[in-house]
Amino acid sequence: MSSAGGRFDELLERLGAVSDLERALFLLGWDEETKMPRGGAVARAEQRATLARIAHELGTAPELGELLEELRGFETENAPESFEASVIRVTRRDYEKERRIPSALRAEMTRAASLGYRGWLEAREARDYELFRPHLERRIELTRQYVACHEPYEDPYDVLLDDHEPNMRTVEVEAVFDRLRDGLVRLVAGFGEPVDDSCLYGDFPPERQRAFAREMLARWGMDDDAWRLDDTVHPFATSIAHTDIRLTTRLFPDNVTGILSCLHEFGHGLYERQVDPRYFRTPLASGASSAFHESQSRLWENVVGRALSTWQFFYPRLQEMFPERLANVPVEEFHRALNRVAPSTVRVEADEVTYSLHVILRFELEREMLAGAVTPADLPEAFDAKVRDYLGVVPADVVDGVLQDVHWSDSSFGYFPTYALGNVISIQLWDRLSQDLGDLDSEFERGEFGSLREWLGENVHRWGRTFEPPELLERAAGGPLDPEPYLRYLEEKVEKLYPGATGRR
Amino acid sequence: MSSAGGRFDELLERLGAVSDLERALFLLGWDEETKMPRGGAVARAEQRATLARIAHELGTAPELGELLEELRGFETENAPESFEASVIRVTRRDYEKERRIPSALRAEMTRAASLGYRGWLEAREARDYELFRPHLERRIELTRQYVACHEPYEDPYDVLLDDHEPNMRTVEVEAVFDRLRDGLVRLVAGFGEPVDDSCLYGDFPPERQRAFAREMLARWGMDDDAWRLDDTVHPFATSIAHTDIRLTTRLFPDNVTGILSCLHEFGHGLYERQVDPRYFRTPLASGASSAFHESQSRLWENVVGRALSTWQFFYPRLQEMFPERLANVPVEEFHRALNRVAPSTVRVEADEVTYSLHVILRFELEREMLAGAVTPADLPEAFDAKVRDYLGVVPADVVDGVLQDVHWSDSSFGYFPTYALGNVISIQLWDRLSQDLGDLDSEFERGEFGSLREWLGENVHRWGRTFEPPELLERAAGGPLDPEPYLRYLEEKVEKLYPGATGRR
Repeated sequence: MSSAGGRFDELLERLGAVSDLERALFLLGWDEETKMPRGGAVARAEQRATLARIAHELGTAPELGELLEELRGFETENAPESFEASVIRVTRRDYEKERRIPSALRAEMTRAASLGYRGWLEAREARDYELFRPHLERRIELTRQYVACHEPYEDPYDVLLDDHEPNMRTVEVEAVFDRLRDGLVRLVAGFGEPVDDSCLYGDFPPERQRAFAREMLARWGMDDDAWRLDDTVHPFATSIAHTDIRLTTRLFPDNVTGILSCLHEFGHGLYERQVDPRYFRTPLASGASSAFHESQSRLWENVVGRALSTWQFFYPRLQEMFPERLANVPVEEFHRALNRVAPSTVRVEADEVTYSLHVILRFELEREMLAGAVTPADLPEAFDAKVRDYLGVVPADVVDGVLQDVHWSDSSFGYFPTYALGNVISIQLWDRLSQDLGDLDSEFERGEFGSLREWLGENVHRWGRTFEPPELLERAAGGPLDPEPYLRYLEEKVEKLYPGATGRR
Repeated sequence: MSSAGGRFDELLERLGAVSDLERALFLLGWDEETKMPRGGAVARAEQRATLARIAHELGTAPELGELLEELRGFETENAPESFEASVIRVTRRDYEKERRIPSALRAEMTRAASLGYRGWLEAREARDYELFRPHLERRIELTRQYVACHEPYEDPYDVLLDDHEPNMRTVEVEAVFDRLRDGLVRLVAGFGEPVDDSCLYGDFPPERQRAFAREMLARWGMDDDAWRLDDTVHPFATSIAHTDIRLTTRLFPDNVTGILSCLHEFGHGLYERQVDPRYFRTPLASGASSAFHESQSRLWENVVGRALSTWQFFYPRLQEMFPERLANVPVEEFHRALNRVAPSTVRVEADEVTYSLHVILRFELEREMLAGAVTPADLPEAFDAKVRDYLGVVPADVVDGVLQDVHWSDSSFGYFPTYALGNVISIQLWDRLSQDLGDLDSEFERGEFGSLREWLGENVHRWGRTFEPPELLERAAGGPLDPEPYLRYLEEKVEKLYPGATGRR
């Protein structure tokens, strides 16, 4: 045991170095999207590629494999959910997956992501998809090489999905999405004229929005000692350490909806913030999966961030900060506007009901691109066609259409589905925590979010990657992945805002 | 040749990776001092230590040594100042020096620097030197270990100096400093009542100072595509790439002198910005030495940044931005105030005449600490005593005294002397370029700084580390290191501002 303990310490030391490199990479990425002068792009791509290559080399070193073998006994001596057994188990999973990939390919994928991000920004600025197309072609080529490293597989998309949802298969996603698509299309068709949300538009100086968002998030649990909030083109959250959480947002001068992106990213940040500090510098120190991560962001953005009770506390302050625009708008009107349901072209601005349809169409397009059925040259048209089919609206141009998301530039395929799966999980968790904690609305009305935060910390966040998603879901929500609670939640919500729309009465 | 060429490409590839890690380290450091929430400190120290260790391992790998041996023929086939020969020569120098140091020591020095920086910030906040003392003790201990790796040496300080001034010896510094000390002390004693500089004090909102500094630096050659300017506690400049230059500054609401720190850092930034782009990702892509770097910052801060001609162009705009304070102050009065000479306690705020005395006393203290003649426990008193002896003033407290500089927390010993050597070099260069370019004042009065910038680019900056400092000085200024032009420059300046003070007429 003491000798195994010594080997375990050696493992922790190796993992610490890999973690340091990965977190440094997060910082390089954060800086690239928030602070870096554009002239730094080529150098940054090289820097990220080199760090990614070295992290990959260290994470797939034969000595690491030998250590993992030697520690098999030590692993079984410890309880499966113990720190020791979990570190070994999760490291082995990562090791076996990563060593299929040449370090040079990992470096090239990282370099292409940096350059692709720059290409995406330039294409958006010029409103010219052609500036982005070569980057997408390169990405697909590299993605195919990456997938090929993982043969055999049932479906090539399984490989990509597994990067974000360990062990989840594409057929499982399809089953959930088929049910969601049917339910959502029916819901969308059911109601007529959307509510008036004009109170969200007008003159909203971004500096004041930022100040308000910071106040609101401070109440939710963000503090300056361990968090930041910065501007970017496409909002994201990243964790340089559990004590150094970076949220980013994009606020618009002519509407107040950008605040919701702050609430969304807070959910991601809180997850990383509340991971057990003991997991620091190990592979456990992150969320269980992308869908679990999105469940947290979507929960804070939608379930809490669009609740009337929440705004009964915060709205007077918002009115105070934007008196010209909101002094005469009652909280109920503001709340209804925030919850407006109406098909639109942009995913990040979509309401809760149509949101998952945006995700489903991207999932389908990624699979078609991977199969070669849709080429990068076809993509803008294919994208617009799907938006029209599922949502009945047509993007005004490429920035409003195929170039709206950052993900096809700097992230890998396989991420999009996790947004909709996150929605599903968020409501399964919400139903369970509502049973445990009782009515939270009265707490929210008083500006108290501590018991929610603690429940999530205790039941989800602190565990990091200890459990695979199905086990974590079973423990935290008491059941397997199930879209029905989410559909019920949306139905109830729509029914409340548009009585009669769901045809339930 | 083609096979040697192939080996040379292999060398470049290895050096590229080391460079990427080093630049990533610069970014981690920049972030630590400008953006990082304080909670990130411990994680950042680990991240920096890991990257430093890996950079050191790659930069001292036996395979690199073998490559350098194999390339000896290729090196001599190429002219000494060629890219190829210079890369090999400079890499060999770094390699032979670095491999004397264990990677673990390099990592520990980096970790201690990060933690020391945090300790320094905390000690300043609490105005309590004792919070910093353990960090300084650790630094001295590590510095001694580091010095011991380089035995034999004539003087232990030679080892530290060599990190900043290749091949310069402590006795050479002493010779220059002896001459400077005498000349400066005589100058300081010679004049009576300092000029009135009250126009520099009052209500100067930092945001407007920042806007002005950005305008001024834009005119000097800074653009948003490749530069940034951020706030920090102790100003510095860093280069994430020659196309990604970061300046930092500290502006105070009650005086306008912080703008000078922007001008200073611009000099550093311009040097890195104008290094030959071909040197990208090689060890050549940096300044020739710290003193050469300081010669550039001091030249732009003092020779250009305190010139009447410069302010004849910029001052009307400054008045426009601070009308309450400056509308009735003539440019001549502002210029005299900027050039005020009077002993004070804080180095970065010191005038040109007393500045080098601040440096000399730090150089002496570093040597005494290294020898154990002054311990960290003695340091505050020893520091104050020297300030009193050389400058005739006494620090108000530790923040005003021993804790004023960041360098004993996060940098290594041996840096301070380069500030004064930089002053000396700046005037040697200035004299030479004035001969080449003729009178620059009329250009400065018109807001034109291009010919100065180009001369420096052509004669100094573009060469990066191609030449060692003495050779570069010989080529650019036409002579060896010589304090006399600097002393003459100061005498003339003082005589102009305080007629009769130097006793020359």
